[in-house]
Order: sequence, then C-alpha cells, then structure tokens
Amino acid sequence: MPPKQLTPEQESFLADLFPGTGLLTSPERVAPFSADASRLRAMPLAVVRPETAGQVAELLRWADTERMPLYPRARGTGTVGNAVPAQPGIVVSMLAMNRILDIDERDFVAVVQPGVITGDLQRAVAEKRMFYPPDPASSGFSTVGGNVSTCAGGLRAVKYGVTRDYVLGLEAVLPGGRTLRSGGRSHKDVVGLDLTRLFAGSAGKLGLITELTLKLLPRPETTASVLAGFSDIHRAMEGAAAVFGAGILPAALEFMDKATLSALELAGTSPLPREARAALLVRVDGSEAVVRAELERLETALRRTSPAQLLAGRGEDEEALWDVRRGISPASFNLKPDKLSEDIAVPRGRVAEAVDGVHAIAAKHSLTIMCFGHLGDGNIHVNIMHNASWPEEAASAARAKDEVFGLALSLGGTISGEHGTGLTKADYVARQLDPLQQNLMTDIKRLFDPHGIMNPGKGW
Amino acid sequence: MPPKQLTPEQESFLADLFPGTGLLTSPERVAPFSADASRLRAMPLAVVRPETAGQVAELLRWADTERMPLYPRARGTGTVGNAVPAQPGIVVSMLAMNRILDIDERDFVAVVQPGVITGDLQRAVAEKRMFYPPDPASSGFSTVGGNVSTCAGGLRAVKYGVTRDYVLGLEAVLPGGRTLRSGGRSHKDVVGLDLTRLFAGSAGKLGLITELTLKLLPRPETTASVLAGFSDIHRAMEGAAAVFGAGILPAALEFMDKATLSALELAGTSPLPREARAALLVRVDGSEAVVRAELERLETALRRTSPAQLLAGRGEDEEALWDVRRGISPASFNLKPDKLSEDIAVPRGRVAEAVDGVHAIAAKHSLTIMCFGHLGDGNIHVNIMHNASWPEEAASAARAKDEVFGLALSLGGTISGEHGTGLTKADYVARQLDPLQQNLMTDIKRLFDPHGIMNPGKGW
Repeated sequence: MPPKQLTPEQESFLADLFPGTGLLTSPERVAPFSADASRLRAMPLAVVRPETAGQVAELLRWADTERMPLYPRARGTGTVGNAVPAQPGIVVSMLAMNRILDIDERDFVAVVQPGVITGDLQRAVAEKRMFYPPDPASSGFSTVGGNVSTCAGGLRAVKYGVTRDYVLGLEAVLPGGRTLRSGGRSHKDVVGLDLTRLFAGSAGKLGLITELTLKLLPRPETTASVLAGFSDIHRAMEGAAAVFGAGILPAALEFMDKATLSALELAGTSPLPREARAALLVRVDGSEAVVRAELERLETALRRTSPAQLLAGRGEDEEALWDVRRGISPASFNLKPDKLSEDIAVPRGRVAEAVDGVHAIAAKHSLTIMCFGHLGDGNIHVNIMHNASWPEEAASAARAKDEVFGLALSLGGTISGEHGTGLTKADYVARQLDPLQQNLMTDIKRLFDPHGIMNPGKGW
Repeated sequence: MPPKQLTPEQESFLADLFPGTGLLTSPERVAPFSADASRLRAMPLAVVRPETAGQVAELLRWADTERMPLYPRARGTGTVGNAVPAQPGIVVSMLAMNRILDIDERDFVAVVQPGVITGDLQRAVAEKRMFYPPDPASSGFSTVGGNVSTCAGGLRAVKYGVTRDYVLGLEAVLPGGRTLRSGGRSHKDVVGLDLTRLFAGSAGKLGLITELTLKLLPRPETTASVLAGFSDIHRAMEGAAAVFGAGILPAALEFMDKATLSALELAGTSPLPREARAALLVRVDGSEAVVRAELERLETALRRTSPAQLLAGRGEDEEALWDVRRGISPASFNLKPDKLSEDIAVPRGRVAEAVDGVHAIAAKHSLTIMCFGHLGDGNIHVNIMHNASWPEEAASAARAKDEVFGLALSLGGTISGEHGTGLTKADYVARQLDPLQQNLMTDIKRLFDPHGIMNPGKGW
C-alpha cells in the first residue's frame, strides 16, 4: 500500500540527507514537480535534489527498505507522463547533478552527470571540434540523463542513430544503494551482457543514473538544407526514395503532410506555394567541399521527382528553412486549442500508407490530424488536434488515438518511436508486446528493483 | 551432472526430429564441430542441424526438460572457443537456416536466417544499392547470426558502429521452446526494455536466434584509401588525430606497429620504406565527388604530420593497399609458428600507451608481439607470437597475455573489443566485471535459461 504522506521519521531522514533546499515538502514548492509535458499531474509526497552519487546511494538504500516509490526526473520535457508520480512517492530531481566532468578530444568521449542539458553538451563539445549527434527536438532544454532514459531519437537519427548508440558507459545506483558501473571509455567492449544499453530507454525503472560516458564524433564542418514542396504525400515519398536511391545518407530527413502545411499557412510561416500539400526538409553535413557536392546531388535527385517548389539554403537561409520546421508545434494551435501528440513509427517504406491511414481516421472522426516528423526513420509525429472542452470532440480524439496505434501496429510498426509509453500509452503496451516479452521485462526489472520502487505505476 | 553419452531414448528423439543428415552422432562426422578458430576442442555428444524454427522450438523444449547442454554454432570462426562444447552436450549448427528472407529497398531492412554468410548479405544488398555496414575481418565466411551473438565489430565500426547498431528485430527460441519476437522493421522503437540489443553479444547464452531483422543504409558510391608510413607509433597517432581534427570521419582507420611491419617485410608484402616503423591505413567513402574532396583533405591532414611515405589509392590501387592489411595474419607466421590472438580495446587516445606497454611486455618476456587493428575504435589486435612446442616460450606467451589484459584494464580498457570471452578469456572476466555486474548478468541469463542449458561452461 503506497504511503499517503511521509512519516515524521521519513521526513527527518530526508531532511538530514538533503539539507537546505535539497528537500522540498510544501505543496507550493512541490507542485512544479508534479507534472511533465504531458500535462498529467500527481502530487509527490516530497521532492529531493541530490548533488552527489553518495546521496543517491543513501536515498536508494533507504527507499528500498521503506518501499518508498521514487520518481526520477530532470526537465520534465517528456510527453507521456513518464516522470509523473503515479503513486504517492518521492520525485528525485537530477538537475543539481549537472556537471560536464570531462570532454576528451583524444578519446572522443564526454563524461557527464545526468542533469546536463543536451544542448549545453552539444555546444561544449563543438568548441573542441567534436559532435554529440543525438538531437531530440527538446535538446535546448532536455537533459542527457532524460535522453538516455527514453533513448531519445531526434532529427539526426536517420544518419547518426539514436541516443543508445552513443552511450559507452554509465554509473547507476540501484535500489538498496548498490552502485552499478558498466562499460567505459572504450568505443568497443563485448565482455558480458550489455547492461549499459539496457538502461537506454529503461524509463527510470532499473535504477538512477548518476554518470554517463558518451561517444563523440568529429564535428562536421558545415551543413546545407533543402525544403521541397510536393503535390501530395506520395510524391514526397518518391522524393525521399530518390534521395536514398542516389546514395545520399542525409543528416536529417523530415516531412510534413497537408494538415501540417495548412497550420503553417494559417500561421503565415510557410514559404511554400499553396499547391504544395506535402513537403520534405533534408539536411546534409560534412566538410565545405562535401556539402557543396552533396547539395548538388540532393537537388538533382529531388528535381527528378517534380517538386512544386524547391528551396535550398545555407547559413541564415538554411536556418530560415528549419524555422519552418520549428514553427510546426506553435502553428498547430491555429487549428485547435488542444492536441494529443503521438509518435508512432512504421517501417520506412510504409510512411505514406500510415499518413493516408491517419487522414482516413481523421475524416471518420471529423478531426484534423497533422502528420510530420522523421521520415528517414519512419517516425511520424501524429498530432490529433481537438478542443478538449468539447466532450464529444475530446472523445473522438481519444478514439482516433486508439485507431492510430492500431494502424501503426497493423503496418508492422510501434506505438512509440521516441517518446516512450509512460502513463499515456501504458494501456496500449499489451497491444504491442506479447506476454512473453512483458514477463521478461518485468522479471529483468525485478532483478534490479526487487521491491518495485523505481517509477512504479507505468505498465510493463 | 552432464551426460557422458546420449541415452537410446534421447538419440531416437533427436533422430525423429532431425531426419537424414540432420543428426550426426558418429565421431568422424561430429569431429568437425568440436573446435572453432581458437583451436580448442571438445567432442559433443551429437550435432543437430535444424532447418526450421519449429525444429528449434522442439529441440529447446526437449533439451530444457532433459537438462541437455546446447552449443549454438555457425561457421566456427570465433577465436575464443565460444562455440566449443565445454561440457558434454549437443552442438546446434545453424548453417542450414541460411536463407535471406527479404531485402526491402523501401524499408531499408533485410530479414535473414542466422546462417546467412555476412559477405553474401553484403553483396545481395549492394545489388539493390544498399549497404550492410558491419564488416568483421571474417565477413567472407562468418554468419550474421554469429556476428550478432558476438556483437561483431570490424573495419567500418569507426564510422558506422558495430553489429548491435544494425539489429532492429529478432526471433529467438528460448529454453522450454518459447518463441521470443522482439523489435521489428521500424528503425526506432522505444516500447519496453530493449530485449533485442540484449541478444547482441550474448554469446548464445540466452536463446537460439532463428531470424534477424537488420537495418540497411544507402550504399556509398565509392571509396578511396591512403596508406601512410610513420617513423614511430606516436607519429602515427598524431596522424590519426590530424584526420579526426580535420573533421573527417573515416570509413576505416587501421594501424600497424613496427612488429607488424617487420612481419610484412619478411613476407615481402610491405610497400613502405624500412624507416617506417608504424603505419595508418585510412578509407573514406561516399559519392564520387565526396570521395575526391575527402581524399584531398585526408592527404593534406596526414602530410602535416610528416609521414615517411604516403600512398593513396583508388580502384585496383586501393585494393592493393588493403591487401597489405589482409596480409598481416598470414605474414605473422614468418615471425613464429604460433600466436595468441587477443583483441583488447582502450580509450582511443591511449592506443600509443597501450602499444608501448605491449612492446615493454614483449621485451620483458623476449617475445615478439604484433599490434595492429582498429585504431579508430581503440581496438587493438595483439598477436603474441611464439613457438608452442617450446614449453618455456609458451609459458612466457601465456604470462604476456595475462599482462596485456592487465595493461588494457589499467588504461580504462577492456579485455575484448570484438571477440568476446568464450573459453580463452573466461578466467579473466572477473578482473573486468565486478560481482554486481556478474551477478546481474547471471541472473538475467537465468530468466531466459533457468536450467543453464545454453552454452554452459563459459564464465559469467
């Protein structure tokens, strides 16, 4: 039975371990830690803010004995409620452990605490002419620890892979206060089972990450991008196929459907003509000479598929093209005040089918649904626009979400390409994972967390 | 207690399940399956050769009930004895499950059975203008299933990552005959714990892989390479640093130390002058225009570090440069008739220290030890040359191996970057992995394989 409030003994233990503002208990101080970007909300019993791995170890030793649920949290940018304290428990904010411990241009490695903002790390390694590729849309404010816990993807995944592919080693404290050190600074290591990558995407359910060793690459010198408008989504897919067919592995390959372009038009931020009902945004990177050559090949490949318009950009002009992409989320609210924001992924070749299917679902429920995102990975952001204050439309949106998940699974895809399942998709996990998979996951979790104190109440 | 021989009931069960030559029991037919490239050897009780996942499921159901050790095996190219039946049991040869089931140029996915030769897959996807990057030196004869079980690395890992990074989904049969299907054709998927990648490098200890879904990339149009000789290993490291410093991410970055170059000189296959006591071999890939630009930058970067010689090649000339690399293993036997072939990895910036350290160990034991390999990953092939028929030299070689592992660990490295630990390094695992790591691995294995029938006797 989860506790309703802290006992005086519990509160005094926590106050000793987290002096000063390291422990928050008053409702008004705790409230900001009750929700994440899902807008779901549940008040924790308290919030603690460790500054050292030693404090984390003490906390996990104590919490395991007390059977006290712990909810690890960083910037709360997750959209599925994974950081929300679904059962009464303690939120552990990792934002005070935010030091970059080492950036080594000989080893091509960074060692960081989990609370480092991903964008800060990207800038710090860029100063040393290196590159940390994982680039979720939230990278300006989300943390490396949160990115690892969700195995964040992002814009560059099509060329550079996801966060998992950059985690070389970690230190994590497990319930009971045991410290697990796995992997290290070697770029290759095949001794034993891969515990390091098991933490990537584990959603805070195995233990609390206190340090990460990350792989870096040499920094690409420059980039160039092309925005291409097409008459429909199938033409846009032909454009994408032409890019890959030319042997180009783009550093980003985004798409936007007609509903997305309509939202941008309403916001006045679309540079494309009205006849463009789908668009691709493609980036290439490398040295100056390489980018010049790749940009030419990219334009040639895209022109063969008869785009309605093709805008190439470098420098400020390139940023302007990406401002179009960045403008999607704010522009969406020109359509409706609320959205269900999903992130299905399907096999890359089935994106057009998926988008057509989503539009059919939208028509059936008289809703507008925007599809856009990481075409290169088959990862589609599905924004189900609605007005939540109209009960019937809210119900329609919920039904549409259900059908969108069914569509993704019927196409051999997944209900989440990068957000995870958290609370908002917890009930759908069993539609994707069979009992054997779920049981193995539950059993593995139990090895790390026998009493189920790590982020409980989130399915699997 | 492991069985000494099959009972008549066991043999008859297997004969029914594997008709014709699907079951081998006579010593002369079984013998070829008793060893791998480690030259370690142990006779199995029998060899079975499944052709279907149904047979595999039946086999694992039966073996679990009988507590019969199973040793999965493909081409036996592993160098650490991982495929050797260390306890009396049954070798399961996966070579009859060797079909490429699908290569999809829209999804950028291949679906294969585990017994497909990696080089065959590479060629088949290349015909469709795609690319399967993992490229262990054995790719001409090792299998995809074996590569996944060892998380094989290889020449291209510095740019493209290791086998793990290309496994999107799998089907594996677990002891008891349960079929696990994990992941799929989506390039991104973050629902639940990552069981798919847990199999990468699991050395046949969790279950028997029966199908793999692999990520493909667009095929780079062409390549170019440079072989650069340097006066010593430190100069060569400066050369490598200059390559990365120029923002070049090479498709391969190999090095050779002075002992390796001596062996090549003796074999008459070194194109470098005698004053070259270390060498780099660097490949770039991409479109024709990209490769031309990158080759120029590569040569410029390397020239700044004053190489003794610099040979660039494309087409046949490029193949000739790589023939030098391919000639290392045969040439090594010009030094001594026997070798201990290790594959430590260290943080990339510590390769020179590691090579110096290995040379000091060699001097101490009056041995010749060659260091070469994947500099870009810090993954060093350490060949301890000796004459095994001289007991004292064999003993020195064994002591040197021990010290080489100690050196790797003292530099923050690993005792295996790509071969795994199998039998030859089983006793060293505890020097790298602490009890918590080992216990977690053992416990996870037990969830998949409660009775320890999968590849037992190999440590962790």
